[in-house]
Amino acid sequence: MIRGDRDDSVGPELPGSVIRAAVETALAEDLGWGDVTSDTLVPAGLEASAVMVARQAGVVAGLEVAREVFLAVDASLDVELLARDGATVEAGAALLRVSGRARSILAGERVALNFVQRLSGTASLAARFVEAVRGTGARIVDTRKTTPGLRVLEKYAVRCGGAHNHRFHLGDAVLLKDNHRAAIAAAGETLAQAVARARASLPHTVTIEIEVDTAAELEQALEAQPDAILLDNMAPEELRVSVRRIRQARPGTRIEASGGVTLLTVRAMAETGVDLISVGALTHSAPAFDASLDFRIGGVAP
Amino acid sequence: MIRGDRDDSVGPELPGSVIRAAVETALAEDLGWGDVTSDTLVPAGLEASAVMVARQAGVVAGLEVAREVFLAVDASLDVELLARDGATVEAGAALLRVSGRARSILAGERVALNFVQRLSGTASLAARFVEAVRGTGARIVDTRKTTPGLRVLEKYAVRCGGAHNHRFHLGDAVLLKDNHRAAIAAAGETLAQAVARARASLPHTVTIEIEVDTAAELEQALEAQPDAILLDNMAPEELRVSVRRIRQARPGTRIEASGGVTLLTVRAMAETGVDLISVGALTHSAPAFDASLDFRIGGVAP
Amino acid sequence: MIRGDRDDSVGPELPGSVIRAAVETALAEDLGWGDVTSDTLVPAGLEASAVMVARQAGVVAGLEVAREVFLAVDASLDVELLARDGATVEAGAALLRVSGRARSILAGERVALNFVQRLSGTASLAARFVEAVRGTGARIVDTRKTTPGLRVLEKYAVRCGGAHNHRFHLGDAVLLKDNHRAAIAAAGETLAQAVARARASLPHTVTIEIEVDTAAELEQALEAQPDAILLDNMAPEELRVSVRRIRQARPGTRIEASGGVTLLTVRAMAETGVDLISVGALTHSAPAFDASLDFRIGGVAP
Amino acid sequence: MIRGDRDDSVGPELPGSVIRAAVETALAEDLGWGDVTSDTLVPAGLEASAVMVARQAGVVAGLEVAREVFLAVDASLDVELLARDGATVEAGAALLRVSGRARSILAGERVALNFVQRLSGTASLAARFVEAVRGTGARIVDTRKTTPGLRVLEKYAVRCGGAHNHRFHLGDAVLLKDNHRAAIAAAGETLAQAVARARASLPHTVTIEIEVDTAAELEQALEAQPDAILLDNMAPEELRVSVRRIRQARPGTRIEASGGVTLLTVRAMAETGVDLISVGALTHSAPAFDASLDFRIGGVAP
Amino acid sequence: MIRGDRDDSVGPELPGSVIRAAVETALAEDLGWGDVTSDTLVPAGLEASAVMVARQAGVVAGLEVAREVFLAVDASLDVELLARDGATVEAGAALLRVSGRARSILAGERVALNFVQRLSGTASLAARFVEAVRGTGARIVDTRKTTPGLRVLEKYAVRCGGAHNHRFHLGDAVLLKDNHRAAIAAAGETLAQAVARARASLPHTVTIEIEVDTAAELEQALEAQPDAILLDNMAPEELRVSVRRIRQARPGTRIEASGGVTLLTVRAMAETGVDLISVGALTHSAPAFDASLDFRIGGVAP
Amino acid sequence: MIRGDRDDSVGPELPGSVIRAAVETALAEDLGWGDVTSDTLVPAGLEASAVMVARQAGVVAGLEVAREVFLAVDASLDVELLARDGATVEAGAALLRVSGRARSILAGERVALNFVQRLSGTASLAARFVEAVRGTGARIVDTRKTTPGLRVLEKYAVRCGGAHNHRFHLGDAVLLKDNHRAAIAAAGETLAQAVARARASLPHTVTIEIEVDTAAELEQALEAQPDAILLDNMAPEELRVSVRRIRQARPGTRIEASGGVTLLTVRAMAETGVDLISVGALTHSAPAFDASLDFRIGGVAP
Repeated sequence: MIRGDRDDSVGPELPGSVIRAAVETALAEDLGWGDVTSDTLVPAGLEASAVMVARQAGVVAGLEVAREVFLAVDASLDVELLARDGATVEAGAALLRVSGRARSILAGERVALNFVQRLSGTASLAARFVEAVRGTGARIVDTRKTTPGLRVLEKYAVRCGGAHNHRFHLGDAVLLKDNHRAAIAAAGETLAQAVARARASLPHTVTIEIEVDTAAELEQALEAQPDAILLDNMAPEELRVSVRRIRQARPGTRIEASGGVTLLTVRAMAETGVDLISVGALTHSAPAFDASLDFRIGGVAP
Repeated sequence: MIRGDRDDSVGPELPGSVIRAAVETALAEDLGWGDVTSDTLVPAGLEASAVMVARQAGVVAGLEVAREVFLAVDASLDVELLARDGATVEAGAALLRVSGRARSILAGERVALNFVQRLSGTASLAARFVEAVRGTGARIVDTRKTTPGLRVLEKYAVRCGGAHNHRFHLGDAVLLKDNHRAAIAAAGETLAQAVARARASLPHTVTIEIEVDTAAELEQALEAQPDAILLDNMAPEELRVSVRRIRQARPGTRIEASGGVTLLTVRAMAETGVDLISVGALTHSAPAFDASLDFRIGGVAP
Repeated sequence: MIRGDRDDSVGPELPGSVIRAAVETALAEDLGWGDVTSDTLVPAGLEASAVMVARQAGVVAGLEVAREVFLAVDASLDVELLARDGATVEAGAALLRVSGRARSILAGERVALNFVQRLSGTASLAARFVEAVRGTGARIVDTRKTTPGLRVLEKYAVRCGGAHNHRFHLGDAVLLKDNHRAAIAAAGETLAQAVARARASLPHTVTIEIEVDTAAELEQALEAQPDAILLDNMAPEELRVSVRRIRQARPGTRIEASGGVTLLTVRAMAETGVDLISVGALTHSAPAFDASLDFRIGGVAP
Repeated sequence: MIRGDRDDSVGPELPGSVIRAAVETALAEDLGWGDVTSDTLVPAGLEASAVMVARQAGVVAGLEVAREVFLAVDASLDVELLARDGATVEAGAALLRVSGRARSILAGERVALNFVQRLSGTASLAARFVEAVRGTGARIVDTRKTTPGLRVLEKYAVRCGGAHNHRFHLGDAVLLKDNHRAAIAAAGETLAQAVARARASLPHTVTIEIEVDTAAELEQALEAQPDAILLDNMAPEELRVSVRRIRQARPGTRIEASGGVTLLTVRAMAETGVDLISVGALTHSAPAFDASLDFRIGGVAP
Repeated sequence: MIRGDRDDSVGPELPGSVIRAAVETALAEDLGWGDVTSDTLVPAGLEASAVMVARQAGVVAGLEVAREVFLAVDASLDVELLARDGATVEAGAALLRVSGRARSILAGERVALNFVQRLSGTASLAARFVEAVRGTGARIVDTRKTTPGLRVLEKYAVRCGGAHNHRFHLGDAVLLKDNHRAAIAAAGETLAQAVARARASLPHTVTIEIEVDTAAELEQALEAQPDAILLDNMAPEELRVSVRRIRQARPGTRIEASGGVTLLTVRAMAETGVDLISVGALTHSAPAFDASLDFRIGGVAP
Repeated sequence: MIRGDRDDSVGPELPGSVIRAAVETALAEDLGWGDVTSDTLVPAGLEASAVMVARQAGVVAGLEVAREVFLAVDASLDVELLARDGATVEAGAALLRVSGRARSILAGERVALNFVQRLSGTASLAARFVEAVRGTGARIVDTRKTTPGLRVLEKYAVRCGGAHNHRFHLGDAVLLKDNHRAAIAAAGETLAQAVARARASLPHTVTIEIEVDTAAELEQALEAQPDAILLDNMAPEELRVSVRRIRQARPGTRIEASGGVTLLTVRAMAETGVDLISVGALTHSAPAFDASLDFRIGGVAP
């Protein structure tokens, strides 16, 4: 848990053990047996300072992780955050300042940037989707389509962008999809029976959501009384009809839409009245945020 | 090391310990305390089979990793690769078949897809860059701008796409950049002196590459007799002049170009005669490859 | 994920990676540098078989983990489960049979028993609480008062005993307690404002529960419209009044009771009409289940 | 290794690497992706202090571990131990004070308490057994019936309670039991021959103990000249006879008794003159020690 | 725990978890991102077989570890041990045969040899010391001067060479040295008081050994009644006098000698009548055993 | 990455994550469940200081690792390096001073010494080889014949001794040996074809080296145009002829010699004009460097 240079609206802080594990893995991967460039070309005692700078506008995330990268390389470095995770910045904005041994700064540079560029990429894309649906009342949510090993960090980035999280893992909530529907049928149960059975056995904190593709499936789903219904791959008009049907049949049910969501289509979907729109692209296809580290040589330490 | 359903042109196989570590991490992250959906809705004894299918054309990578995902979930699953890592496929192509316990297949589905979608995304983007420079003699190479924790897998995907790898970590080769140049100057050395010093201390297997931004820097670099020169952020005409100068001054020096490479600009760069063009986007901004798992219920095991 | 000798009513299966990690840790801890007793006194080729036997009546859990213990010690052992996790057994019941190298069976004995005794202890205590409230409609649920490092396994044991799980970790659900109430007050917010703020930022799958100690707190809680209300440390009559108030004010709200629950008091609490009764003792104070391994020497392998 | 707020009579200090590993595992397990309650309801800058208080009389253990929990959550917290591991305390005693960020204290609360409650539970039960045999000259010792993953910590708690440790793992000492006896017979050796063989091969620091159930087995055991003899499941009178026989035949042999030891029976066993009484319940069935964290809001940090 | 191709006189088997951890670490270290030589030059389907051959006479150790290396690289390899750990072999002896994919054999070759060469080096040096004292009744024992990370494996190799193990770690036995003596004096205790205090608090399975440098220290040590006495850095005549004194004063005390032991001096030390002679060189200075892998190309698999 | 008490000529610094992992593993291995000697005999509050002293002349390495050992045991210890890694010292030289809690110093002593003795042993042997070839222009290089788990540290020690590193792992460079030659032949390729194929697929930073045993093989190798040629097991005269042939045919090719190199033979090999001589003994057979920790009791802390 980090000391607080963050925007409180981002939601839960990243646990320190999550950050430490990610940073140690990434440094081991990038440093190998040592930095043959800096450690042979840069004098051991040379001091420097560097500023991480945004090269594009967007929403930043991962600055606290970057701080831990530099401190894990060399605990004597001095690191100051100049922006908060979740902040909207312009191109040219200064994000973080680090000063101390030149070799240490150079050793941490790429890993620190890799975290910030990836997480800010997701945060910035999330922010664009959020902007696209502003005023509609719909939430943008993420999916489990994340990078293996980085799920907690990427979902944090989604929150930094103003969007919301869906399930973190398969134990978080029931999401009943077509394959489960087929299995339930094969076992000779109705959907309502199966859902009742699940509710009877699962923690009361676990919510149940059912995915439907058609109006017929929607009727079965309503009968099963889920906490949420996911309308998958429906055209806006179909969405609108389904929303109306759910609101009337079971008010209070949260309504999610998914399937082929893009920045071009998302507003039309949001305007159908759904509560949530899930976007896999936030974590599986966000381009990196452009950032770099501007480096300035200081004196040679005595 | 896996048993061989791969295209030999892909280069070194993924070491088994790399695959095992990545798969175990990803499964722990995605399964949490258990799959509340499948394990309450799908009968324990239900059998099924599923086929992973490409939903777009492209180059696939990560199928061997996906196999290990399913086997790590349940060693009794039967998994067959229907395409090789590195294969070019059409939309609709069947990539992998898995059969056995329905619950086990569903538990591994998302993680297996996450690996295949991410790695095939990189492979497919790499293949488009390779295609764009076909016939020019230029290689497309990756960078260290990879996802923290996935470097070896992502660079494997780059090879699956027909592109080439650059450094895996900071110990692999000297890449002398502007910051090092400044540090060398601050220490009162010439570039040639510093490079000679590095060569005298580093393994004979370590190659030395120098990044230059201007013609003046190029002259200094040539004096230092590196194995390779990286021409950063130069316009095609400037690249062409630089290539000519290097070929004449020190034939045999490998020439790399970098900076703002896109599918639109890469061919012009390649036609300047450079040997290598490095593209950070291969690993930091490749959109996910679209794939899904088609599931079919079998009988209930006795 | 294990092959299925379990009672399906137990809920989600233990993920294989959870079992593997627990077993490897426990074996490293118990074997040290080797088994000085068996490996010096028992011939290397001696074969044996052994049966794990319940020495008391109760509900068993951990048999699948025990199987993995023996296989991790020696993959050539033959292990057969004779009872399912979640089964109610009498004293003397045979639970598991293992046969093969005598040294390997002896090396795994204590670790296998430690898992089964601890997990069956929790399952059996849970079953007694469940039995005590039978017919009342109240669920027995666990808490986060688990053994460090064994949470997923212990909560699995709770399910084996027929009770239910509450939160697995701090990210699973909001549970607003007195300390949070004080912090909210210090920040100048009302409870309802704070809860609304949380709901606006958290995943839609996250449920919100508020703990109350008094009737006044209950009124504030009702205003905040949580998914569940936890009535802490109330006498049965107070509970009954509170239940009535909640059912009338916000039907559908789940009602949990906690505080000083014992086998003697739990039924009276259940009869007040609450939905859930949380019992820390299930995981923090369950005595071990009595079991042992009956060993029989076979022949010496050729 | 921790800085020393402990009672020196507790014996060897817990190695720092043992504490760090246990704490990191427990925090990862309890924090998941973040604390949804505190981090959405408690302002980031709110300061607080809290005191861990005993809710029962007993012997405390794990306070040094609890300190590391809070520091691992947030290194800026200020933690002061108010009692030492191994101290006997009354209900209401203050054990530890922590102050700093309110969110950080709340994030560490449950894990810190889980360690203290479990370890103090074992220490307190051990102390009751020690008290029950006071003046008899018999030691209370633990067994390998510990919680998987927590052996070193639980055996430390046993020492905090004034009892003693037996083997930490299978490499620590020979403990020849009935199964080994059967294997030795199957191999056609006498007990004395087998023990002599073990002594000839094992480190001179490894002691040899033989378990016996009957007078006949005792005679065989004496012939084998072990360092210690374990009298299993004998009634007090039988114990007394056996002790007399051993003292006369091989004075200096340590004598251990085991089997069905309870607080009611232990003194009679101790008065038979045995040196050690092993009690599995210390680690497998100790109820949790009751403790809680009293929390007080401070100001909001600027 | 491995299936038994070992000489039973070697003592406790290497636990499987020890082997697995060592092998996985070593393979990750040696394979990096892949084998650029074999995987680009050797066809994927090429089959081969190879025999590991001793290039010198000596005692072999580590063959079971080598088998696990090859199987961890590729579970489809066929590995057969041709000698047992602990066997005395001549130069030219065949130790292990592996057959299957050529690439897999080449990938495991260096790691398998590194284990066998290092462990056989220690085993062979141990065997020479054992041979040098044959008939004297003295044991050769190792020390804690082992390679960081390999202690359990190296001490296994010591046993393979016919020598014996001393402490595995600081919790195994008391070894009171000069620094402890000074600390005891500083605290105002006598040696006998301190030892009595230790005995009162430590497990009854823990033996106590005292190191002495002079006759005066020996008298103090005898007074403290330790289980063993270590005579450090004494000349043979001094050793002889000390042995006589101990045998007369406290028969049954084990006597160890240490300090500057070489193959030239060890027999004279052994003939003084000591029970044990500890030799740090067994693990800190044993030269590698010469071995290699003879490789033969098979056919190309279809 | 450590703060700089090192000789800059040693080349790349040891990454902090490499040091941390090695130290934590070694401490867990050596401390077990606690230090039964110091923690029962030395008062908890006793202060001391100690100096690590060289007991022989040589080149030291591992002092920075030793510092981390003491700090990992107890962060309150004060550690000062009195020599730099890579320094040539005389017997009696003071290397490191540590002061603080006596127990903590004693707990770290053996592990700190084990690292320094092993790494300085390798550094000192490397320095002797370097000295033996002084003036010839030949480099002494290491091999992959390192201790499993310690490769990065041992290769650092080689550099401390003034020698150079060869490959760190199989991904660093192609080293085509006799087995690969056989496989290439089996596949019906010429060496030159195979090498060209490898060059076409491998990173441009990967150098290619070919091992040859005979003049005929040398001619084939030259045709393949490798970056380096390894002349294996050739007598000096044969080496001289081969060197002449390579210099004439392909000037610029680096020439390595290997096979049975000893301190007696290495100079003759160096005088043949080769560029590099690889010596497996540096890492597989270097005897430990003699060093010890001189301990002095301070006062008892209040």
